[in-house]
Amino acid sequence: MDKLPERIRIKDIARLAEVSVGTVDRVLHGRPGVSKSSKGRVEEILKELNYHPNVYASALASNKKYLLAYILPEHKEGSYWCDIEKGIKSGSEAFNDFHLSISPIYYDPYTPTTFDTCIQEVLALNPDGVVISPTLPEKTFSLVGELNKAEIPFVFVDSNIAELNPLAFFGQNSVQSGYFAGSMLMLLAQQANQVVIFRHIHNGKNRLMNQQQNREKGFREYMSKYHPHCQILEVDVDVKLNSQEVEALLNTFFSEHPDIKCGLTLNSQVGVFGEYIEKHNLNNFHLLGYDLLERNIKCLKNGSVRFLIAQQPVMQGYNCIDSLCRYLIFKKEVKQFNYMPIDLLTADNVDFYQEVREQ
Amino acid sequence: MDKLPERIRIKDIARLAEVSVGTVDRVLHGRPGVSKSSKGRVEEILKELNYHPNVYASALASNKKYLLAYILPEHKEGSYWCDIEKGIKSGSEAFNDFHLSISPIYYDPYTPTTFDTCIQEVLALNPDGVVISPTLPEKTFSLVGELNKAEIPFVFVDSNIAELNPLAFFGQNSVQSGYFAGSMLMLLAQQANQVVIFRHIHNGKNRLMNQQQNREKGFREYMSKYHPHCQILEVDVDVKLNSQEVEALLNTFFSEHPDIKCGLTLNSQVGVFGEYIEKHNLNNFHLLGYDLLERNIKCLKNGSVRFLIAQQPVMQGYNCIDSLCRYLIFKKEVKQFNYMPIDLLTADNVDFYQEVREQ
Repeated sequence: MDKLPERIRIKDIARLAEVSVGTVDRVLHGRPGVSKSSKGRVEEILKELNYHPNVYASALASNKKYLLAYILPEHKEGSYWCDIEKGIKSGSEAFNDFHLSISPIYYDPYTPTTFDTCIQEVLALNPDGVVISPTLPEKTFSLVGELNKAEIPFVFVDSNIAELNPLAFFGQNSVQSGYFAGSMLMLLAQQANQVVIFRHIHNGKNRLMNQQQNREKGFREYMSKYHPHCQILEVDVDVKLNSQEVEALLNTFFSEHPDIKCGLTLNSQVGVFGEYIEKHNLNNFHLLGYDLLERNIKCLKNGSVRFLIAQQPVMQGYNCIDSLCRYLIFKKEVKQFNYMPIDLLTADNVDFYQEVREQ
Repeated sequence: MDKLPERIRIKDIARLAEVSVGTVDRVLHGRPGVSKSSKGRVEEILKELNYHPNVYASALASNKKYLLAYILPEHKEGSYWCDIEKGIKSGSEAFNDFHLSISPIYYDPYTPTTFDTCIQEVLALNPDGVVISPTLPEKTFSLVGELNKAEIPFVFVDSNIAELNPLAFFGQNSVQSGYFAGSMLMLLAQQANQVVIFRHIHNGKNRLMNQQQNREKGFREYMSKYHPHCQILEVDVDVKLNSQEVEALLNTFFSEHPDIKCGLTLNSQVGVFGEYIEKHNLNNFHLLGYDLLERNIKCLKNGSVRFLIAQQPVMQGYNCIDSLCRYLIFKKEVKQFNYMPIDLLTADNVDFYQEVREQ
């Protein structure tokens, strides 16, 4: 092979592959209009030279604009979904130079029909890609059917429906996370013969099924393996109850079970129970929950919640945008299933959790 | 203010600030040759417009080449430093399009004089920036004196010497990490009245001082606060001992302390002790250590090590390069002190730890 200059140029590749510069350019950017044999020769040379096109330069030169949409449950300030959204926004800022814009779409998780409007909205937008939280599986099936027809790639955040074959998924392995929750709770509780799951339900259903139910599955798996004789109690708290009603419910529970020493929530609502524990001075009660909401962190620091399990929501959101951009703008490969770490936080390490992730 | 086009151009800024396009360009890229008043006017307009230069385009257009050096202890395959180096390499690959190259320099941590050669090497290279693991504080002081003279920016990885004022530091808060280690170990050990610290020393000194000593300080702080009557034993293992000699040392220790139920290492060498525990079927001994070396993970999975504390070495290395590039290439601000999370790993969550960090 001829001696090559230090920095390989497209014209060098064209010369070696005996094709025009335009042909090399078409192969590099995946555009049509190249014969199979020319394409093969160019690809061979690229491989031989270990040539990587300057993706930034290509993307900047293209001047194409990209619109991404994201579909999340409606949420209040300070909720788990705020952090997911924060990551999405921070991801879109990171790719700002590549003419990227994002458009939010929200649904009411307790009124599934509102998701139908989301489907209409996203189709009207006709974005280049979509981030979806598939908390309502049936509705997500309908949406994905439409996206597939329109050839719009999508990624799942927080929970997964693998059979819908998303471009990527970012979230925790819920079953394993519940299993881990069991192991850590029982380390606190040691010889406990009773443990309580505080659940949030809606109209009698364990509505946010993907996460809460899968985590409970993992938790029960751990318990039946290592603590088969420990009784698992359940307290179902309807999301519509006001704080007095929740308090009355917990008063009844704790008066009926005066000896219970440990419990957990399998969602981000542990603060509700932590505050009850603190108010009633149940100092020997060990409580574990999920997610670093401010309310939960406060309980962690005052000792009413002993452990929080976190799952990098900001990173989840950021990575969703990152994976769509890698695919759409930089034509790079994207890893499909990406499990977040199962992070254990106590009063002693929680302050260092957020430092890295929110850069 | 005049109506502005959707995409703000340098000539728009020049018009509004009543200066030349060249002046705006100089201000944007921090080059000299601009009067104070022009600079002020341009900066005011930039702020008003919330203008962010397209940093990728600027950097690509400049064609400047960057050389970074990194100075690490010599290390074997599978050691903690491999992961730091992996992150450094991955960081430099990420910035490959910006004409970045890196040059490694190693010293023998047990022969401090070898660090003097590193100083000569790095000065001969005259790099644009340096990553340094300051495990040898006095030597690092000399190096930094030279770098400051040559106006070469540097970042610290793994441990910090804040008074040397690095551009950035990435690593764990060692004291808090040891405190956390104490809290988790005592959760396993519960009512233990004895705990042992297995230490690695060199020639009678606790050589890797920054980390091991600071972690021990935090550990002792926790113990004196919550378990003041628990006796803290020490076993010093010289790094020069072979495996038979280590085994003999541990045989002696365990025969003299048949009732001891828990211990920890404050560095990455916990695998040595985990393997001893496994070999001798000390099933009731609770061991905690640091860092996800393969050997350690094996012990975690077979139960001879119960907890590992991790500190994102790959991310540490990556972020060192990232911060130097942000500063040198993109002229962005860099956060100075960046504490890594204090991550707790057990057999049940360790498999999800690496997924995210090594993308």
